[in-house]
Amino acid sequence: MPKLDLADVPVRTGSIYPSPYAAQMAGRSSLRLGAAGGLTQFGVNLVTLEPGARSSLRHWHLNEDEFVMVTEGTLMLCEDGGESAMGPGDCAAFPAGVADGHCFVNRSEAVARFLVIGSRAPDEVATYSDVDLKVTMTEGKAKFTHRDGSPYVPPPDADTDRDSDRTPASYLQDSDTAVRGTGERK
Amino acid sequence: MPKLDLADVPVRTGSIYPSPYAAQMAGRSSLRLGAAGGLTQFGVNLVTLEPGARSSLRHWHLNEDEFVMVTEGTLMLCEDGGESAMGPGDCAAFPAGVADGHCFVNRSEAVARFLVIGSRAPDEVATYSDVDLKVTMTEGKAKFTHRDGSPYVPPPDADTDRDSDRTPASYLQDSDTAVRGTGERK
Repeated sequence: MPKLDLADVPVRTGSIYPSPYAAQMAGRSSLRLGAAGGLTQFGVNLVTLEPGARSSLRHWHLNEDEFVMVTEGTLMLCEDGGESAMGPGDCAAFPAGVADGHCFVNRSEAVARFLVIGSRAPDEVATYSDVDLKVTMTEGKAKFTHRDGSPYVPPPDADTDRDSDRTPASYLQDSDTAVRGTGERK
Repeated sequence: MPKLDLADVPVRTGSIYPSPYAAQMAGRSSLRLGAAGGLTQFGVNLVTLEPGARSSLRHWHLNEDEFVMVTEGTLMLCEDGGESAMGPGDCAAFPAGVADGHCFVNRSEAVARFLVIGSRAPDEVATYSDVDLKVTMTEGKAKFTHRDGSPYVPPPDADTDRDSDRTPASYLQDSDTAVRGTGERK
């Protein structure tokens, strides 16, 4: 049945960001709608952000296109140039390789939601705009490093915010590298 | 600017279906949002159906995944097994190669809209479920034939519903083969 029953789609939470960044994703959850419907060629996620939550660290993709439509509430789109409010029906497109990082932040008092679509490149690099971090995705596996490629080592006093649910797949549910990668496939 | 101003996106109408089918697409228009935002890796269209209008002939794709979210009004999803009503926020997924044709029909008295995303296969075949027709897409060019591959010749009394706007690109705005193909690229 092509029509999806959203109540049957598992709610994903958590993040595979290394500490201390994973904890900053609290209040975010998502439904992997494309995977639930058997799609493999692109990712489609419906992301819910509680008041104060954010979609991801601000980032840009080297190889993958991304598209967002806000479906509920009000979100702030954060970019190099500042913030823009987006409401239901508002759309934004992020072509691969454009080095202006983005994320969405819910600064309102109500829940907000957006639909995000991302292509699936065999290899991908997402670079984070506000912290010295990047992630390289190879065959669905995420490797976090500093921007110069040196290993990322979490600070000793950072939370160890990892558990068995924080696989590359769950990372890929973000609005970002997000909906992509083999990890999302059914 | 990643945020799109939908009022600036050209409204596409028409169809490249051969006659008499093109005329059956009256009341359908769309905005190519992905192309407007500079995306090339998948298609994203916002399709408007006036009362009585349909998204396309009922069809299925051999190589391309498709995803739909209704954003306004009520649409009937038509499949082999019958019809299902879909309203705002309802989603449906159509994996490549599943030979159950689909289309959306607006049987209500109000305008309805849906967002449709489709991948871009280098070569594609869409087969129409209710008529003896298929289309082969090669490098963005559409070739209509009967299902056995023999040339499609419009009936002599059919309308000649073609004009300069009926390029493969405008065909590709449908909810179907629709959002795909190089024709949509910016």
